[in-house]
Amino acid sequence: MEQRLSLITLGVTDLARARRFYEDGLGWTKGNPEEEVCFYQLPGIILALWTRADLAEDAHVTDTGATFSGITIAFNTRTHDEVDEVLTQAIAAGGTVLKPAEEVFWGGYSGYFADPDGHAWEVAWNPGWSIDEAGLLLMGSA
Amino acid sequence: MEQRLSLITLGVTDLARARRFYEDGLGWTKGNPEEEVCFYQLPGIILALWTRADLAEDAHVTDTGATFSGITIAFNTRTHDEVDEVLTQAIAAGGTVLKPAEEVFWGGYSGYFADPDGHAWEVAWNPGWSIDEAGLLLMGSA
Repeated sequence: MEQRLSLITLGVTDLARARRFYEDGLGWTKGNPEEEVCFYQLPGIILALWTRADLAEDAHVTDTGATFSGITIAFNTRTHDEVDEVLTQAIAAGGTVLKPAEEVFWGGYSGYFADPDGHAWEVAWNPGWSIDEAGLLLMGSA
Repeated sequence: MEQRLSLITLGVTDLARARRFYEDGLGWTKGNPEEEVCFYQLPGIILALWTRADLAEDAHVTDTGATFSGITIAFNTRTHDEVDEVLTQAIAAGGTVLKPAEEVFWGGYSGYFADPDGHAWEVAWNPGWSIDEAGLLLMGSA
């Protein structure tokens, strides 16, 4: 299995609400014409929004309604101050703050928000990693 | 917030067991020297393994021990038959089958495995998407 990943699917209870958050709130653009599943092309991978019930059924797992299963996703910013800007944007879009940004032990600056379905996003500035113009993240500084 | 994502963190209960699965079993290579958190450079993003307790504390969320929170990740194969090969490899490495591969309504071939911590991975062949040499996924065929 090559060392890569293609797609992250976020199961949501209300697809219209989730689209308002990611599209109207964060400014993302849906890349497919279908209405029942929404694909967002990110650099190198795709993020999908799908109803949580359909996702659980597709994966043959039981859904207990939990909002944390040990998975978080992160958006790394290009600058220190962009962390607060993104958290502010996410809250204005209908997200909630899980942790306000703070200077962290590994030398960065990081906070967390939850999207309307409770999916935890870290927003972090890591001076030891680099993000190229296309948005691809590389371990190590540029 | 740019339309991108930097990092996916999988919280695990036993970091040594998780490393055996991803490194010895799947053949992935850790990219950082620290022992308490493991970073794997994927094309464009990083996958991290960290203890689940530390991750929950970092994100300020309560961990109920759930294995499904509405998030799945997917590995898209380059060929139809690679789906079964990857599922077989994941099982040999200590994963479990959630769903054997089957032809699916959207024209692809897909199954799911769970890693030793229950994180659900879809393994899918999607003839409508392309994967370049570097492993970057693009919506639409090449």
